[in-house]
Amino acid sequence: MKTIAVRNIERAEASVVAGLAQQGVATVHEAQGRFGLLKPYMRPIYPGARIAGSAVTVLAHPGDNWMLHVAIELCQAGDVLVVALSSDNSDGMFGDLLATSAKARGVQGLVIDAGVRDVADLTAMRFPVWSKAVSAKGTVKATAGSVNVPVVCAGCALAPGDVVVADDDGVCIVPRKAAAAALEKSRQRQAAEQHKRKRLAAGELGLDIYDMRGKLAAAGLEYVE
Amino acid sequence: MKTIAVRNIERAEASVVAGLAQQGVATVHEAQGRFGLLKPYMRPIYPGARIAGSAVTVLAHPGDNWMLHVAIELCQAGDVLVVALSSDNSDGMFGDLLATSAKARGVQGLVIDAGVRDVADLTAMRFPVWSKAVSAKGTVKATAGSVNVPVVCAGCALAPGDVVVADDDGVCIVPRKAAAAALEKSRQRQAAEQHKRKRLAAGELGLDIYDMRGKLAAAGLEYVE
Amino acid sequence: MKTIAVRNIERAEASVVAGLAQQGVATVHEAQGRFGLLKPYMRPIYPGARIAGSAVTVLAHPGDNWMLHVAIELCQAGDVLVVALSSDNSDGMFGDLLATSAKARGVQGLVIDAGVRDVADLTAMRFPVWSKAVSAKGTVKATAGSVNVPVVCAGCALAPGDVVVADDDGVCIVPRKAAAAALEKSRQRQAAEQHKRKRLAAGELGLDIYDMRGKLAAAGLEYVE
Amino acid sequence: MKTIAVRNIERAEASVVAGLAQQGVATVHEAQGRFGLLKPYMRPIYPGARIAGSAVTVLAHPGDNWMLHVAIELCQAGDVLVVALSSDNSDGMFGDLLATSAKARGVQGLVIDAGVRDVADLTAMRFPVWSKAVSAKGTVKATAGSVNVPVVCAGCALAPGDVVVADDDGVCIVPRKAAAAALEKSRQRQAAEQHKRKRLAAGELGLDIYDMRGKLAAAGLEYVE
Amino acid sequence: MKTIAVRNIERAEASVVAGLAQQGVATVHEAQGRFGLLKPYMRPIYPGARIAGSAVTVLAHPGDNWMLHVAIELCQAGDVLVVALSSDNSDGMFGDLLATSAKARGVQGLVIDAGVRDVADLTAMRFPVWSKAVSAKGTVKATAGSVNVPVVCAGCALAPGDVVVADDDGVCIVPRKAAAAALEKSRQRQAAEQHKRKRLAAGELGLDIYDMRGKLAAAGLEYVE
Amino acid sequence: MKTIAVRNIERAEASVVAGLAQQGVATVHEAQGRFGLLKPYMRPIYPGARIAGSAVTVLAHPGDNWMLHVAIELCQAGDVLVVALSSDNSDGMFGDLLATSAKARGVQGLVIDAGVRDVADLTAMRFPVWSKAVSAKGTVKATAGSVNVPVVCAGCALAPGDVVVADDDGVCIVPRKAAAAALEKSRQRQAAEQHKRKRLAAGELGLDIYDMRGKLAAAGLEYVE
Repeated sequence: MKTIAVRNIERAEASVVAGLAQQGVATVHEAQGRFGLLKPYMRPIYPGARIAGSAVTVLAHPGDNWMLHVAIELCQAGDVLVVALSSDNSDGMFGDLLATSAKARGVQGLVIDAGVRDVADLTAMRFPVWSKAVSAKGTVKATAGSVNVPVVCAGCALAPGDVVVADDDGVCIVPRKAAAAALEKSRQRQAAEQHKRKRLAAGELGLDIYDMRGKLAAAGLEYVE
Repeated sequence: MKTIAVRNIERAEASVVAGLAQQGVATVHEAQGRFGLLKPYMRPIYPGARIAGSAVTVLAHPGDNWMLHVAIELCQAGDVLVVALSSDNSDGMFGDLLATSAKARGVQGLVIDAGVRDVADLTAMRFPVWSKAVSAKGTVKATAGSVNVPVVCAGCALAPGDVVVADDDGVCIVPRKAAAAALEKSRQRQAAEQHKRKRLAAGELGLDIYDMRGKLAAAGLEYVE
Repeated sequence: MKTIAVRNIERAEASVVAGLAQQGVATVHEAQGRFGLLKPYMRPIYPGARIAGSAVTVLAHPGDNWMLHVAIELCQAGDVLVVALSSDNSDGMFGDLLATSAKARGVQGLVIDAGVRDVADLTAMRFPVWSKAVSAKGTVKATAGSVNVPVVCAGCALAPGDVVVADDDGVCIVPRKAAAAALEKSRQRQAAEQHKRKRLAAGELGLDIYDMRGKLAAAGLEYVE
Repeated sequence: MKTIAVRNIERAEASVVAGLAQQGVATVHEAQGRFGLLKPYMRPIYPGARIAGSAVTVLAHPGDNWMLHVAIELCQAGDVLVVALSSDNSDGMFGDLLATSAKARGVQGLVIDAGVRDVADLTAMRFPVWSKAVSAKGTVKATAGSVNVPVVCAGCALAPGDVVVADDDGVCIVPRKAAAAALEKSRQRQAAEQHKRKRLAAGELGLDIYDMRGKLAAAGLEYVE
Repeated sequence: MKTIAVRNIERAEASVVAGLAQQGVATVHEAQGRFGLLKPYMRPIYPGARIAGSAVTVLAHPGDNWMLHVAIELCQAGDVLVVALSSDNSDGMFGDLLATSAKARGVQGLVIDAGVRDVADLTAMRFPVWSKAVSAKGTVKATAGSVNVPVVCAGCALAPGDVVVADDDGVCIVPRKAAAAALEKSRQRQAAEQHKRKRLAAGELGLDIYDMRGKLAAAGLEYVE
Repeated sequence: MKTIAVRNIERAEASVVAGLAQQGVATVHEAQGRFGLLKPYMRPIYPGARIAGSAVTVLAHPGDNWMLHVAIELCQAGDVLVVALSSDNSDGMFGDLLATSAKARGVQGLVIDAGVRDVADLTAMRFPVWSKAVSAKGTVKATAGSVNVPVVCAGCALAPGDVVVADDDGVCIVPRKAAAAALEKSRQRQAAEQHKRKRLAAGELGLDIYDMRGKLAAAGLEYVE
């Protein structure tokens, strides 16, 4: 595989990205038809972060974080770094120095299918990371990978410039061209849910709101005393 | 397997259930003779919750949360939903809408051998969940399962109406008919431990309090300088 | 294997140990040449703890915590208990009573390649634990192991008296005789990093600070628009 | 939990058990309505074994195989030993000596939610084992468990005397009282499948044999060129 | 996500596909620059199979094998079915009936990021499968997925018509348009390796053949007696 | 960590090593007091291999097999390569070319806490490997590690020259200086077991041969009808 770094990528419109951050992962994932979710082993290093940004993608090799330095130069304010590995590895490829550098460039956060370190510092800096592991294990800078190429991160294929939405529920990818539509559907979903939430809070049952009783009987469910 | 929903189950006495909540998982598990513990991969979505309640059990299929809607109707105030799966799955079968509905019925919390989503909302609502995973992956409503049948959840067999005790240490099941005895033994254990705790805090050693030195020598332990 | 308990071990100098605690796991691990790290599945039961101490080592058997009682007697103020298992196990071998006893002896914390329980109590006591699991499963006291022998804990070989450094990034072992040198190198590293941190915060790139551009080109990296 | 060994258990009729062995795990599991399957990490130590027998159940503790000796005395010719653990463990609790003893009593095989050793010898003896792991790690005989009590083995609840069916697809439990009905349904299923197998082998499609095209269209499937 | 089935896909030339089968996974993966490998948990159900074919892709849901029936109709002789899941699941989605049907259509084998059953029958039929698990757990036919869309299977993104190469080392995907070039490079690599193999067999060292001694010294390696 | 390669190591006597091979892993592990076992995830690539040899140890980095070339030069006939990693990785660091080279030097086999590839070729060559994974993923040659230093491999600490015993049950390490004693004890154990095996085969029970009935009663076991 050639190792390349693509300087210019297209990004979704800033207002759309901001809107997706407000909607959150669970809503966006549902609204776009239940795809784009990274595997649930990707967990935030601290609770409460909620971001969306354009993906600057990195393909790195196990135990080698060289490409992250290349990627940071290619980031713009509001971007999210997404690091995929050529094979499974949990080394701590990113720490407080890289976070300082990323933050100086306006990067919002990191999604990495590997490890992260200096998590106390990153938490104090409020630089959110979703990772597979926390590990102090350092990495070499020996083998070139690529930046801004399509990657598979934690089971999900994405392209540079796709929108990354991340919160306490995990990480979801929205294809760049579908971002505006996904936001629109997310808003419709939220509006519809708000109504249901009130009815449910008042004690109505999902069985009745969603009209499930007949279908359950048809599916063979029997009630017994 | 027939798919059934049992409307009426017997529950342990409310005062016994409340007493077990106070005792906590580690004490109750020891007091009843070290059984009934769910596997340790079952973790709370936020620290500090501590509940006990009668189990309303659900047997669901991977990727399908239909039966949770059936179960909520059959819950009474103080119950705990316990969801077992017919095979391993981490999809987010429960989120803020179901939690709103469950809370409106007085359900205290959820124990689910699968995933949960909207965890920031559930945390804000103080609706505690013990789960295998956090995942935004939604589920279909296509295949009927059962409610209030005996299930195996996270390695532990339980029956509807058994008492679920859950806190930061995990989840323990107390058989309904043994609940009063388990509470009594838990209280005895706590009382005995309180005394030991004082002696240990004062610097006495477990080796002496529990009279272990002779047994250790008999088991072959040699001290060397 | 004979089962022995070694009463007297050599420890690193207190000021060196205290210095290593300040440096933290990621720095110390890098400074001593990237070895000595326990596997990243070892996680703290609460965030924010940061300790270093001399290791009192325990070799225990699955489901049996007898040797922890033996070990506590052999601890001095400032020590850290390190528990290795003869085979994989996640039972809760340590809880609030043992923590009370350990704290009374001045033990700073516990590193255990198994489970821990009463984590709400341990958190309230501020007794930090790095473990593989949280589990209320109690253990027997039936089979003798050893105390203060060389062990392998979570993939890392260590000897009694080696320095244990632990924080939110995990756990790192510094060989006793190398502790002073590791501290010195850690301080040098911190000083050097402080300078780099400022430059990175000001927007300079790692690519330039570390002079990577030529090496990346030599490694075959091509920039494309 | 009291530690008991139940001497006499009821067993399913020998002809029914033999019939279930012929049907195999996949058929029996389907025929009885898709329950009773042990988790798929339970794998045979050699391919080609295919057995059914009445379960003599063992509840053992991690790292302790004492109860297996108790269980062997209570076995009859044709039985299958089923070993459940009080918590996760992969030690080699069973080897060629126990297999020699079990074989002398007519035991057909072993299902163990832990490790097994001497697998080359067991293979040579044609004593089949389904286990979670192969491990040479020996075990102590220190803590009493129970024999012939209800257990949960690899995620499946069973009672002594239930029928264990095991082959290259894994292990399935048939409740003793339902064994005759499960055999009957298995035979019906096999007969029905034989007919379908011929049609499929001749090139007919499942889409047509099972009349799926309309349902797929109703479910939203669209064909595109 | 819309659920669609694409009837017509482009395939690589038959002679190229056949050539790739001869080369095997390790050679092809190296020759195309070390990408396209499925995660190593994908294992063959029996040793010795070695195939290559055009991918007919399936996106299925956990516990639901409906789409496999749709896919078989769209297969041509020599194709390989590749099944991806919308979330992790190990149910046995494919067994001897589907294999009979697939074989009747000329399908060469199956790659499935889930479970498979009837493995004794599939082995007897010599229908090779690479899967994540062996499981007798059957599946429903309730929710539509898609056929012949781009998918991520076991960590690798692929498109319908890409070439699947599979043997005892695992599974590798070759993009359709790059297949001829990958074959050519594979052959060059094999030729080069044949020469090296002879030199190594004669006792020459890789250190000398690959001229590594100077680079190792430059990297800091010191020899000590 | 300095990267070094130690040219000369001491080895156990050839006759002792050969004797340990005959005894096998389970016997040797028991005979030396139940230590030295590698974790059970280390599995042979084909059944039936049974070797013992002096360890030439390698400390390598994830995704980098450079040091294996260094190690092969330092091997003598009869040695076994033991490869430890600085962090978890499953890449295929060893294949048919390295095996050809190793075999030419008289190396008996490989134990690697990572992946291996070309397993069909290695099986045909009868070059046995015990590994964590099978993976075609190739590795770089970029970062120096060490050869013939103490390492931790799959949870077990060993030194160069220690004896590696490996068979279908896994891998066990015997410290070089303890090898003769371990062989002697293994032979005693085999002799004792031979006698027990006959009694067990004749239908005597372990309960009686090991005189367990009294101890079981003392431990609280009750027999019930």
